[in-house]
Amino acid sequence: MLPVITISREFGSGGHSIGEKVAKKLGIPFYDSEIVTKTAIESGYAKELIEEQGEDTSSANKWFSISAASAMYFQSPQDEIFLAQRKVILECAAKGPCVIVGRCSDYILKNEEIPCMNVLIHADMIHRISRVNERYGEIKNVDTKKRIQKKDKQRLTYYRYYTDQHWGDYRNYDISLDSGNLGEDTCVDLICELAERFIPE
Amino acid sequence: MLPVITISREFGSGGHSIGEKVAKKLGIPFYDSEIVTKTAIESGYAKELIEEQGEDTSSANKWFSISAASAMYFQSPQDEIFLAQRKVILECAAKGPCVIVGRCSDYILKNEEIPCMNVLIHADMIHRISRVNERYGEIKNVDTKKRIQKKDKQRLTYYRYYTDQHWGDYRNYDISLDSGNLGEDTCVDLICELAERFIPE
Repeated sequence: MLPVITISREFGSGGHSIGEKVAKKLGIPFYDSEIVTKTAIESGYAKELIEEQGEDTSSANKWFSISAASAMYFQSPQDEIFLAQRKVILECAAKGPCVIVGRCSDYILKNEEIPCMNVLIHADMIHRISRVNERYGEIKNVDTKKRIQKKDKQRLTYYRYYTDQHWGDYRNYDISLDSGNLGEDTCVDLICELAERFIPE
Repeated sequence: MLPVITISREFGSGGHSIGEKVAKKLGIPFYDSEIVTKTAIESGYAKELIEEQGEDTSSANKWFSISAASAMYFQSPQDEIFLAQRKVILECAAKGPCVIVGRCSDYILKNEEIPCMNVLIHADMIHRISRVNERYGEIKNVDTKKRIQKKDKQRLTYYRYYTDQHWGDYRNYDISLDSGNLGEDTCVDLICELAERFIPE
């Protein structure tokens, strides 16, 4: 039986594209932006807010949240979004084998009774710059490398805050792949092969 | 054309065994203890010393080396062993596709004009304890988990000292695999498949 496959990915490494192709090849559901839609319904917050805060955070935001929460015992909007998103991810995974992109899904599914295979996709900066420019277009007066680095920092901070773990720690993944060196198609084939051979603990 | 495959591995994760099987399956040379023998010839130091200092170090040793070297401008035996071992690794890699286990080989071959595929093998502590006891036997009055943790620390310190990088940083590997969850045979098959598809940058 196929596992739930979580894809943790560096911005610009092709994680979404790889995840989508894996899901198509294995004939299983693919959840990326769909999680945003479902989380909007679950939480009542706007999709745009969830897209902005569902996976990234600045340290400034997080410090504000910590002091606000401890001082006043209330959840910030981002905390509420996290909890709603977590619920959505658990529901998607409970339905059966699927591919879920990011959003701390590897951590959320960790101790659940659901066979899960955690994948990390990364690439070197040259590949990522090229990919981000190609996929999202260049933004006038914005240095793509800095844009990527900022996104990395936001994502790492979010992950650290909500999971107490370090994003990218090799021990958290069954397989990690350099998509820049190996190419997307090779990554897709390897992940599919692994999924078909996967035997849950 | 097949690349040189470097295997970085956690103690007890089966890296040696996986590397050996990969080499056999691909029909290429396998270098692990052979490096120790060649380094002994190259450096003039005894094999036993190279086995002890060729990959592991305690912080205490390294601090001694730093103060000794800076104070007296001489290389410690471990520095000499590292340089001799580096030369041996470069010579092995220059001969053509092969599998090389550990010894900072991923770093040593980094900027060489040699197609190289870097693999990281790891496993959770339960698997590692079981494997170490099975392969090396239990040592009376020695807790296997502590033995593994000590080895990890020594290896990390050695790697950090000689490469200025963090062992296990996912960015340094084309592929990393959890051999405990996936099993050795699956790791062997995936690495071989990847090697056969590898296109150097």
